[in-house]
Amino acid sequence: MPKINGARLLGDLKRLAEFGRYETGVDRPTYSDVDIASRQWLADKYAEAGLTPVIDGIGNVFGRAENATRRLLVGSHSETQPRGGWLDGALGVIYGLELARAFAADPQLKGLGIETIAWADEEGHYGNMLGSRSFTGRLSEDEIDGYQNREGESLRDALARAGYAGRPRIEVDPGRYLGYLEAHIEQGNTLDTTGLRIGIVEGIVGIWNWRVTFTGQQNHAGTTQMARRQDAGVAMVRLATQIHDRFAQLAGPRTVWTIGRMLLDPNAPSIVPGKAEMQVQVRDLDEAILVRHRDALMEMIAAANSAGPCAIGVEDLSMTEPRPMDPAFEDAIEATAERYVPGGHMRMPSGAGHDAQVVSHKLRAGMMFIPSLKGISHHWSEDTKEDDIVLGAQVFADAAAEILKAG
Amino acid sequence: MPKINGARLLGDLKRLAEFGRYETGVDRPTYSDVDIASRQWLADKYAEAGLTPVIDGIGNVFGRAENATRRLLVGSHSETQPRGGWLDGALGVIYGLELARAFAADPQLKGLGIETIAWADEEGHYGNMLGSRSFTGRLSEDEIDGYQNREGESLRDALARAGYAGRPRIEVDPGRYLGYLEAHIEQGNTLDTTGLRIGIVEGIVGIWNWRVTFTGQQNHAGTTQMARRQDAGVAMVRLATQIHDRFAQLAGPRTVWTIGRMLLDPNAPSIVPGKAEMQVQVRDLDEAILVRHRDALMEMIAAANSAGPCAIGVEDLSMTEPRPMDPAFEDAIEATAERYVPGGHMRMPSGAGHDAQVVSHKLRAGMMFIPSLKGISHHWSEDTKEDDIVLGAQVFADAAAEILKAG
Repeated sequence: MPKINGARLLGDLKRLAEFGRYETGVDRPTYSDVDIASRQWLADKYAEAGLTPVIDGIGNVFGRAENATRRLLVGSHSETQPRGGWLDGALGVIYGLELARAFAADPQLKGLGIETIAWADEEGHYGNMLGSRSFTGRLSEDEIDGYQNREGESLRDALARAGYAGRPRIEVDPGRYLGYLEAHIEQGNTLDTTGLRIGIVEGIVGIWNWRVTFTGQQNHAGTTQMARRQDAGVAMVRLATQIHDRFAQLAGPRTVWTIGRMLLDPNAPSIVPGKAEMQVQVRDLDEAILVRHRDALMEMIAAANSAGPCAIGVEDLSMTEPRPMDPAFEDAIEATAERYVPGGHMRMPSGAGHDAQVVSHKLRAGMMFIPSLKGISHHWSEDTKEDDIVLGAQVFADAAAEILKAG
Repeated sequence: MPKINGARLLGDLKRLAEFGRYETGVDRPTYSDVDIASRQWLADKYAEAGLTPVIDGIGNVFGRAENATRRLLVGSHSETQPRGGWLDGALGVIYGLELARAFAADPQLKGLGIETIAWADEEGHYGNMLGSRSFTGRLSEDEIDGYQNREGESLRDALARAGYAGRPRIEVDPGRYLGYLEAHIEQGNTLDTTGLRIGIVEGIVGIWNWRVTFTGQQNHAGTTQMARRQDAGVAMVRLATQIHDRFAQLAGPRTVWTIGRMLLDPNAPSIVPGKAEMQVQVRDLDEAILVRHRDALMEMIAAANSAGPCAIGVEDLSMTEPRPMDPAFEDAIEATAERYVPGGHMRMPSGAGHDAQVVSHKLRAGMMFIPSLKGISHHWSEDTKEDDIVLGAQVFADAAAEILKAG
């Protein structure tokens, strides 16, 4: 079985975190100078590990295992959120590198190849999951033309600045791989609070978003009698309360829903709000559960609309489909975890999005989680115990070996 | 009885609206160049009417009736809201001027004096109701030192720029007046929708404001299970809904309450809100009604706080006391209105604040409303039919004469 070198693994994770260090975290947006430098560093590390490094036209860094007879693609994204954590993305990238080295070092694993990948812009500085979408043929040239970052730099300009413009974008050859594996910190606190050490990801939830708008009549809060008001804020808080009550009845065991954004207009203490809007979001692994929440939402909106006095509109925003992971990959990760930490693992959905959901359209895909301390992520204080990092890599390597051996 | 000259009244109203005209309304903030010029114009008009004009150290423009034996102080404020209406404030100021002229022209009213006033900064560009507070001894030099406008100009600098700095601020001599009368557009749509033409103001409502804050735990909307959430937004919409339900049960016939301002933090669709705040406002003429709403609010907050999971705080913001108008003044206005438009008038509270509430601490005070078309105010499209403007002035003049005759 492949043997993980914990010190080397942690050393490389810490070295990668030097690119854009911020407090105890990292600020390394896609195509920033530190991101470009870190991708070259990764390419060099892949080469050291005996892989053929290629940075393609979107900035994906591949470490190609040319001589293997069976291959798994293993990695994650290497850029970070603004002032983000040092493990989000980076963990999965360095796991890929360490697995490749462990496999290469073990003569018994000869012919079984770990091909590494560091995706570009999963975090959406320019466009969401650019690297895995490019790889799977889900990113058109027109889309690339249209993207820009928050500072207004176009994606085309960023790619030119990075030196990636004009290179081919590598697209998946499905025959080349048995599948794709991605490890990640959990980003929630389920493992941390239960003391479990490995999460076997059953799938990546579908995320359905709606914008709900309320149109009433803006008025003076002193001179407009209650009976004459059409207060968009009242309509919004009443519907929001109803949604929270009703969704609680409809929810599956792991459904989550959120009204994270609300706006009143003009949002002044002495003015009856004439307009309001909120965003409603539901996440679940089961599309049938998502559908029943959507149906209930539409029903509540229709009822509130006929009751009046405000007009309520609803608009579909992004609606991603739930993506199940490969059951055989899940079984392999679970069986391996059970060997190292009996009873110390659980199956769980991923509530956040990952490149694995995109790749799963073209390759069998699996994901493994390790704990996040206090569930913190997308913040520089994000962290995980070193023991958990090393254990996770070993479980992940053994599972990869099982999968490759099984063929 | 005094005889209003409708053409002269409307002409002067339109002339005053030229100072800062904006669309069909007026943009004349306190101490702006056009405001300073309009105050001088008013002083000149007061002089033409046989009054002694004085602009004092806060910018109040008085037209003193030196030879009268009994006096009423009559007026309103002359600045406007940004891009505000042409009648808000100005109507009451020009009514004062027209009443003074009508009284002076009638030998039978000899000795009965209308002393005119155009208050400064009722609208609060620098500080709320500066002119009437100064006149009634409710504005200290320290407070003047502390005020500034939205652009950051200090009140001291504005007074110096206007040429008012160093002048004495005139304070009320209560023995000089029988009382204070102010006419105003209603700023609501009660008169307009009922077709009534005169409102007799029973009092100016007390306005009680609270800031309610919710502290939960900010979290990732995908990875934080519902049972573990402390969602400040959920706590806010639930309490707001409860407030709307409970206040509806507690309300008197003309109580109004408003939650006009709400904030979620960080207000992002995929983040469980960690903090939220809203402002709750109640208005009524009856302090007992205000008290029972406050008690209910505190009760609901305490209950929500013990239920959890968020911590809810509440802070008193401005709390003005309800100010009843003088009953004899109300009777005089009502009796006069009944003579001109039998059945075409009603008693009503003022839901908005006015200088009369401040003056009422030192002098008997009365207010009269005329209709606002569609109830619009604080907007340049605010308007009133000319017939209503002229009728209102005649009713107001006759009522003033009754009051002065009665002594």
